Amino acid sequence: MNRLSLNQITTKSWSLPEAVRGCADRGVEWIGLWRDKVAEVGAAETARLLAEHGVRVSSLCRGGFFTGVTPEGRPVDGVAQTREAIDEAVTIGADVLVLVVGGVAEGDLRASRQRVADAVGELAPYARERGVRLGLEPLHPMQCAERSVLSTVEQALAIAEEHPADAVGVVVDEFHVWWDPRVEESIERAAGRIAGFHVCDQQVPITDGLMARSLPGAGPIDHRRLRACVEAAGYDGPIEVEVFDAELWRQPGGAVLDQVIEPTASTSPRTDPGVRSYGHAATSS
Amino acid sequence: MNRLSLNQITTKSWSLPEAVRGCADRGVEWIGLWRDKVAEVGAAETARLLAEHGVRVSSLCRGGFFTGVTPEGRPVDGVAQTREAIDEAVTIGADVLVLVVGGVAEGDLRASRQRVADAVGELAPYARERGVRLGLEPLHPMQCAERSVLSTVEQALAIAEEHPADAVGVVVDEFHVWWDPRVEESIERAAGRIAGFHVCDQQVPITDGLMARSLPGAGPIDHRRLRACVEAAGYDGPIEVEVFDAELWRQPGGAVLDQVIEPTASTSPRTDPGVRSYGHAATSS
Repeated sequence: MNRLSLNQITTKSWSLPEAVRGCADRGVEWIGLWRDKVAEVGAAETARLLAEHGVRVSSLCRGGFFTGVTPEGRPVDGVAQTREAIDEAVTIGADVLVLVVGGVAEGDLRASRQRVADAVGELAPYARERGVRLGLEPLHPMQCAERSVLSTVEQALAIAEEHPADAVGVVVDEFHVWWDPRVEESIERAAGRIAGFHVCDQQVPITDGLMARSLPGAGPIDHRRLRACVEAAGYDGPIEVEVFDAELWRQPGGAVLDQVIEPTASTSPRTDPGVRSYGHAATSS
Repeated sequence: MNRLSLNQITTKSWSLPEAVRGCADRGVEWIGLWRDKVAEVGAAETARLLAEHGVRVSSLCRGGFFTGVTPEGRPVDGVAQTREAIDEAVTIGADVLVLVVGGVAEGDLRASRQRVADAVGELAPYARERGVRLGLEPLHPMQCAERSVLSTVEQALAIAEEHPADAVGVVVDEFHVWWDPRVEESIERAAGRIAGFHVCDQQVPITDGLMARSLPGAGPIDHRRLRACVEAAGYDGPIEVEVFDAELWRQPGGAVLDQVIEPTASTSPRTDPGVRSYGHAATSS
């Protein structure tokens, strides 16, 4: 199976139709979609485009913000918005909805975490009835305050385990969890619960908490080890390349996707081609 | 006891003599010193100034970088430099030497962590013979790559526990560990091992991984809860206010220290005076 998936944030300058076509043209069979890009063309048209080009959705990003406040501090009904996102996932054929659970509300970290667990409990049956799996994604601790009070795989798993495995899983994103001294044992314990695997690298030093990523291979993350962990835990689904990188985003989408597919085309100085073998024709080893 | 300690990085514009005098003038009985500032006047003169002004050293910052590479990527003999730092701690009367253990060397996180454990094992007897306690300080995961492969209190404690409690302890810095879902239980387990408690707050969002701090009370950190944890674990030593904040650093040292002592003098909009009660005359409640 060709496991490479383009998370469309990586080619941010591309519209959804451009990204779907870009994948199809290059034999990339999977794509991770974002709701703001889907909204530009509508869910039905998105589904049509995907079918026309034979590209499948690895995940829809995102639901969440269950603690009731956006990163900018505005109030939000995360549960209601996530219900809409579940419906949208059904329409576009996404099996997984990624959840970014929300940051600290009212200065109370513990209560915020409880709100997240409660919201997942409320939404899990709704998602399961519709065949959509909720993917709890722990985010890097530097995003705890404003984006995600879930910071580790272990934490996400503790919430997921309260629900059937086909209703709630965890999404392992290298950038967010590579530093965690418990990440290996946590991934092992998450066997049967892994709903997605996202790869990228970290810029050093971090000069922007949200954007400090790069294409896999240019930073401190041991991609081989993390991939071995998720595979030992039984995950054999698509691998999304998801990169927030202002410099990369300024490049044309096609040039970016070429670098995702073919490491030797990368501008990154320390790229290790071996870490980017996802079964794609151009990268099989 | 007056527990307030000025970590001198907070008043970065001040020289060591200015900082010691500034503390004495305001009744601040403790100071946390940095080696670069000590070097400007020499260790013997530092000791003389401290004695003259009746100010005690809560900690000396820092030894470490055991993985063999500086944050800028240059080679360094961390063990040799830390021996020198231990000697300096003896001269200036610091009971605690803070350790920043170093980042990922040669892309191997696991091996880097082992190097840290080995270096601490090599240095612990040397420190203990001289009456200096090594304080392992876990740093925020966003500094894992280049500064510290120790990211959690639990991790630091696992290394410390291999040695006598008076030889190796852990330093709890709110900024670095507040987000950790295991921080409370880890601090509880660290009873008898806590070698220091550093307070500050986090800027939201993080736009610079090293500098994103502020005076306590302006951010998402629950200071009351963390202080209650370290005190329940038996820590009754000095509390260092340690703030990396470019805006604060541009202010004169005296104005900064006034804000540290007296929250109502602070320019931070969300300051909670109650979180800054360290027994200092101006802040007792």
